[in-house]
Amino acid sequence: LQQSDLLVARILREIHELSQIGGHADGSVTRLAYTQADTEARMWLVNRMEEAGLRTEVDAVGNVFGWPPNSSTDPPILLGSHVDTVPGGGMYDGTLGVVSALEIVRSLADRENRVPPVGVVSFACEEGSRFGMSSIGSRAVTGQLVPGDLERLKDRDGITLRQALQSAGLSPKEVHKLQRAPGWFRAYLEGHIDQGPELEETGCPVGVVKAIAGVSRYLLTFHGAQAHAGAARMGQRRDAMAAAAEAILIIEHEATSAAEDVVATVGVAEIVPGIINVLPAEVRLGLEVRALPTAGAVNFDSRVRERIQDRTAHRQITVQWDTLSAGEPARISDVVRKTLLVACTESGVPAREIVSWPNHDALFLATHGPSGMILVRNRGKVSHHRDESVRPEDLQILLEVLQRAVHHLMTPS
Amino acid sequence: LQQSDLLVARILREIHELSQIGGHADGSVTRLAYTQADTEARMWLVNRMEEAGLRTEVDAVGNVFGWPPNSSTDPPILLGSHVDTVPGGGMYDGTLGVVSALEIVRSLADRENRVPPVGVVSFACEEGSRFGMSSIGSRAVTGQLVPGDLERLKDRDGITLRQALQSAGLSPKEVHKLQRAPGWFRAYLEGHIDQGPELEETGCPVGVVKAIAGVSRYLLTFHGAQAHAGAARMGQRRDAMAAAAEAILIIEHEATSAAEDVVATVGVAEIVPGIINVLPAEVRLGLEVRALPTAGAVNFDSRVRERIQDRTAHRQITVQWDTLSAGEPARISDVVRKTLLVACTESGVPAREIVSWPNHDALFLATHGPSGMILVRNRGKVSHHRDESVRPEDLQILLEVLQRAVHHLMTPS
Repeated sequence: LQQSDLLVARILREIHELSQIGGHADGSVTRLAYTQADTEARMWLVNRMEEAGLRTEVDAVGNVFGWPPNSSTDPPILLGSHVDTVPGGGMYDGTLGVVSALEIVRSLADRENRVPPVGVVSFACEEGSRFGMSSIGSRAVTGQLVPGDLERLKDRDGITLRQALQSAGLSPKEVHKLQRAPGWFRAYLEGHIDQGPELEETGCPVGVVKAIAGVSRYLLTFHGAQAHAGAARMGQRRDAMAAAAEAILIIEHEATSAAEDVVATVGVAEIVPGIINVLPAEVRLGLEVRALPTAGAVNFDSRVRERIQDRTAHRQITVQWDTLSAGEPARISDVVRKTLLVACTESGVPAREIVSWPNHDALFLATHGPSGMILVRNRGKVSHHRDESVRPEDLQILLEVLQRAVHHLMTPS
Repeated sequence: LQQSDLLVARILREIHELSQIGGHADGSVTRLAYTQADTEARMWLVNRMEEAGLRTEVDAVGNVFGWPPNSSTDPPILLGSHVDTVPGGGMYDGTLGVVSALEIVRSLADRENRVPPVGVVSFACEEGSRFGMSSIGSRAVTGQLVPGDLERLKDRDGITLRQALQSAGLSPKEVHKLQRAPGWFRAYLEGHIDQGPELEETGCPVGVVKAIAGVSRYLLTFHGAQAHAGAARMGQRRDAMAAAAEAILIIEHEATSAAEDVVATVGVAEIVPGIINVLPAEVRLGLEVRALPTAGAVNFDSRVRERIQDRTAHRQITVQWDTLSAGEPARISDVVRKTLLVACTESGVPAREIVSWPNHDALFLATHGPSGMILVRNRGKVSHHRDESVRPEDLQILLEVLQRAVHHLMTPS
């Protein structure tokens, strides 16, 4: 236990060290992807990996890999997460998973006197806050970044992803070569801080992720008949605003009825022309649906779409559906999930399963090999905020569970 | 009849003459208040009034009066409307009423060989399109312009009403002196093109206005709990967007149930922060209510407000109501209305009554003396558009009815 106290102290020191890169006086951190702070964090990580005896590789999109040095034909177990943050984020999101991964490698190496067949990875640009698309690094290596994305994705200042990569000293021209063949890792394990209150409120130090919600985004455009507010009688209106309002309530109702398997959010509404005495010609809604690979979520999008189409037809309003992005939910690998649950039990903590509604790199990795996640409870209950907080004793449990799981996965059953 | 053909021809010529001031090649007219075209139209009108033997006065806010020259202690009957337009408006809106008024004075003078005790007025800035407030001229003379309005009201370019008046050669410093004592006119009669399809569709050449809807505008702000779309479960949300949607449908339902006495429009919605994966912190709706002085409209605003408050309370959403402007509906003078109806019957056309949902200067004049309106059918069925159109034979009927009504009103019963 004294040994593990030392490990926890080292991780905490490293998390605090990293939080100084892009850190603010109030304890929050801004390490937006491909900015100077993000590049500095990448360099910090490369140094730590080399100290741990790993062979480092920074790829064209900014993913940082620390490979086990003894080249072997067997693909390694991969542990990791990301080190970029949202603006004013907390110090644990992503970082915790990367630093813990590093620690697993170091402690296994110490114990076994050789660097284990375990790699560490920090995926680039996991947060969607700069370019509106999340997990750019893990998408790139799993072939889920399309060629046009480098020009299409722009930040608030109009800087394209290509320009951002260039200015961070990376190689946008090589990004298309990053796609790997499935099976390049034996298993992927990601540790992460819980982004909601669930583990804290249920008193569980860790939770094994059983599913990651798929995220789909739609633009719904309601075409009504523009009219002067004083000229159109109530009974004669083709009111795009009322049609959109009805759609918002249909979305809310269907999601609430979907047995906890779906969340659906309308976060955007644009009105054309948007004048107080003009019945709108057009109302545009931005809809996001997060769905689990479970019964209640089946056909959710098409069910909502049909009901809205039906209601708008009654109003003689046409509605146009544009899919901005469609994401499948991730079925977590049974092997990894069960291994983590066993490791929990062996470590003397409840083997609790949990759903991840936010996206993670593991969602994309899951398409290339057995992938799983373990969340550690968040004392602050909030995410993307300086109030994120992890207890040292929970960190110790996370480390122990991860060590046991890696050990099981390395040992042929 | 040959005589009246000539009068109609003269009015049509003058309407076309005026339509050249600020006119576009496609037949539409842009004579925004206090622009050069508007000032030119004012000068054109002063010349026509003087030719007709009227004593002209352009007041500080740009109202143009043509007073009967024989000063008398009896207040005159006032006929008129306005000559400003919306951007790309039609050539009849406002202009028709002013030019007909001029024609009534001219034809009465011809017939009686003396200028009758009838004044002509063109109220300034009737259209709300430049400053977001309508009927600025008639508000000023009836004391319904508040001192701060000259600075508060701004156009799209940030030009204040004060600056606009100054640049049109008018006298913003004198505007506060314009308020008159009620009773300064014996009766006010406004002729206007119908702004909707009602007269055209019912086959009535003219309609006597029985009420002008009052217009009230509100800003409704729904305060919810901002949250990441992936972190907030459906059952735990305080969703400002869904609360606003429910409010829109309550407004629609109550207005539709209000027995044709109310129209209510939500033409504006603003979402804070307005990001597709963020449950909004705040949704702001712009609501306009137009209500008649009739049973169905009584307490409409407070009824809607209560129902919305009730529903939002269930959602733990707070809603803030700000009154942007509150307008009472105008009860049209019974004397003027009945006189116009009698004049219709005497002229051999149906004595049809009609409601005016758009605002008019008569709404404000009605607070200072007996006021009424007569609408002439609009072949184009649309308003604020170049397709506005009036048949010459309908113009002739309008003139005849107005002449008879003025005659009755001049003659003590």
